[in-house]
Amino acid sequence: MKKRLVLALGGNALQKNGEVSAEAQKKVANEIGEIVASLASKYEIVVAHGNGPQVGNILIHEESAASEKAPAMPLETAVAMSQGQIGYWLTQAINNAFTKKDQNKRAVTIVSQVVVDRDDPAFKNPTKPIGQFYSEKEAKALQKVTNWVIKEDAGRGYRRVVASPLPIDIVEKRAIVDLVSKGIIVIAAGGGGIPVYRTKVLRKLKGIDAVIDKDYAAEKLAELVKADIFVSLTAVPNAYINFGTPEQQALFKLTIQEANEYKKMGFFKPGSMLPKIEATIKFAKKGGIGIITDSEHLEEALKGNAGTIIKK
Amino acid sequence: MKKRLVLALGGNALQKNGEVSAEAQKKVANEIGEIVASLASKYEIVVAHGNGPQVGNILIHEESAASEKAPAMPLETAVAMSQGQIGYWLTQAINNAFTKKDQNKRAVTIVSQVVVDRDDPAFKNPTKPIGQFYSEKEAKALQKVTNWVIKEDAGRGYRRVVASPLPIDIVEKRAIVDLVSKGIIVIAAGGGGIPVYRTKVLRKLKGIDAVIDKDYAAEKLAELVKADIFVSLTAVPNAYINFGTPEQQALFKLTIQEANEYKKMGFFKPGSMLPKIEATIKFAKKGGIGIITDSEHLEEALKGNAGTIIKK
Repeated sequence: MKKRLVLALGGNALQKNGEVSAEAQKKVANEIGEIVASLASKYEIVVAHGNGPQVGNILIHEESAASEKAPAMPLETAVAMSQGQIGYWLTQAINNAFTKKDQNKRAVTIVSQVVVDRDDPAFKNPTKPIGQFYSEKEAKALQKVTNWVIKEDAGRGYRRVVASPLPIDIVEKRAIVDLVSKGIIVIAAGGGGIPVYRTKVLRKLKGIDAVIDKDYAAEKLAELVKADIFVSLTAVPNAYINFGTPEQQALFKLTIQEANEYKKMGFFKPGSMLPKIEATIKFAKKGGIGIITDSEHLEEALKGNAGTIIKK
Repeated sequence: MKKRLVLALGGNALQKNGEVSAEAQKKVANEIGEIVASLASKYEIVVAHGNGPQVGNILIHEESAASEKAPAMPLETAVAMSQGQIGYWLTQAINNAFTKKDQNKRAVTIVSQVVVDRDDPAFKNPTKPIGQFYSEKEAKALQKVTNWVIKEDAGRGYRRVVASPLPIDIVEKRAIVDLVSKGIIVIAAGGGGIPVYRTKVLRKLKGIDAVIDKDYAAEKLAELVKADIFVSLTAVPNAYINFGTPEQQALFKLTIQEANEYKKMGFFKPGSMLPKIEATIKFAKKGGIGIITDSEHLEEALKGNAGTIIKK
C-alpha cells in the first residue's frame, strides 16, 4: 500500500526572483508539478500551499479599485479567490507532468474552509499584516469606516493587521480523503484555508477575516487525512541552529524532545522556521514523520537521507 | 437509487436588486443552499453556476489597480478566482442548510478546467464583452500593449471582447463523479469553467482567455457525469414564445422537434433564453430530461408539473 504524504509549499514558492506575473508563477508551478508527478508512483499525495503574496495582491487590487458597483471582497473571500487561482495553476501543472509521463493520473483542487475558534486568543491581539500600506491620514479615515485594526509597520507606513488563529478542523476533509484514496492528487487548504468558525447556537459556518498559518493548517490536514508523512517544503535544505552565523549547523534526524529543546533555545525565527518546526513536532507527536527540506533534497529526505526529520 | 441532477444557476442568480457586496451575495447563496439541501434526499446533485458580474468585477479591480509589483491576472486565472469565490459562498450555504436540517451531508467545490478547441471558429470572431469600459484613447493605448480585441460597445464606450468557444471536455470529471457518487454535493464548472485547450504535439493543458457559456458547460457536465436531469435555473418560470408581448405564451412539455421549431422561428434571445434552450435540447437528445424554470417552480418542475420540460 502506498504511504500518504502531505506536502506543504511555502507561500513564496511560486514567485522566483521576484517575478509575479501569472505567466512566471505558472512556470514555477510546472517545476512543482514535475516533483509531485515523480512522487506519485510511491505516495498518495495531498498538496497544501501558502498564498501570502497572491492574496496580498488580490487585496491591493480589490481595495484600491473598489467602487459602489464593484465593492472590495473581504479577506476571507479573497483567500477563496487565491485558492482558485493557485489551485488552478498547480492542478494544471501536475496534470501536464502526468501527461508528459504518459500517466493517466489527475490532480484536483478542493476549495477548503478551515475552522477556527471564535474565542481563539489571537482575535484579541491581531498581529499579521496584510494588504497595502496606508499613510497616517488614510489609516485614520479607514478606521472610521471599517472595523479593521491598523498598525504602524516598522516605519514603512500603516497596515491592516489580522488575527492568526489556530486551525481546528477542515470542513472538506471527507471529500479530500475520498479523492486521495482513489489515487487523485488533491490540492487543499490553500493559504491556510478560508477561515471560518461555527456560530455557538446554530453551529453555522461563518467566514471571518483572519490568516491561518499555512504550516499549521497543512499539519492539521495531514492529521485529518491520516497521512504517514508531513513535509514542509521551504527554500533551505534543513532547519538550522545558529542560522546565518559562522556557527550555523544543519539539523538532520531529531527526536521530538531534541526539536523542542532547540525551539526553547530560540533558534527558530517566528513567521519563518518556527511554525515549520512546531508543525512537524506536532505531527511527530501524533505518530507520523515530519520533514523540513527544499525541493532539491525532497527525494533523499523521503528516503531518510536528507532534510530535517522529526519523529518519535 | 437516487436520480442524478445537474443544476445550472444563472450568472446573476447571486445578485438580487443590484446588491453586489459579498455580504449580500452570501445571503442569496443561503436561499440557494436551502433549495439544494431540500432536493438532496431525492437526488445526487452537481451545481454549476455563472460568474458574469463577479468575474467582471474581479477584472475591473485587477486591471484598474495593476502595477509592476501587483500585475493584473489574465481572464482565465480570473475565472479560477471567481470559482473559488462563488464556490466558497455556495459550499458554505449548502453545508449550513444541511446543518439546519441536522443532516450530515456535505458540499464541496472543485476548481474546474473546461477544454475547448483552439481551432473553434469563435476564436476568429470574439463577441463576448468583458471587464470595464474604456475611452477611445485608452482603447487605442491598450491595443498597443496587449493582444486584446477591443470593440465599441453600443455607444457606451470601448470594451474588450473575447471568444465564446464550445466546451468539449471537463478535466476534473473523474473526481466530480467520485464525489457525487458518494452523496457529496459538488459545485463544478463555475462560470462555464476555466477555459483551457490541449496543445497539438504534447497534449498539454494551457489556459486561454475566453468565456465559455455557462449553460453549454453545465450541459456538458451533465453528460459527463451521466446525469438523469439537467435544469437551467433562471429568473422566469418557463421559456416563452412571443416573450414580452401580449401574445406571450409559456412553454410546458416539449419534444426535441417542437423545441427546435420554436428556436428556428427566432423566439429565443441569444445570450439569454437561446443558450438555455440549446443546452436542454442537446441534453434531451442524449436521452436525458432538460428543464428550464425558476427556483420557485423547481420542485414542481422536477415532478413534471411546471417549467419548460424538453425530452425525447
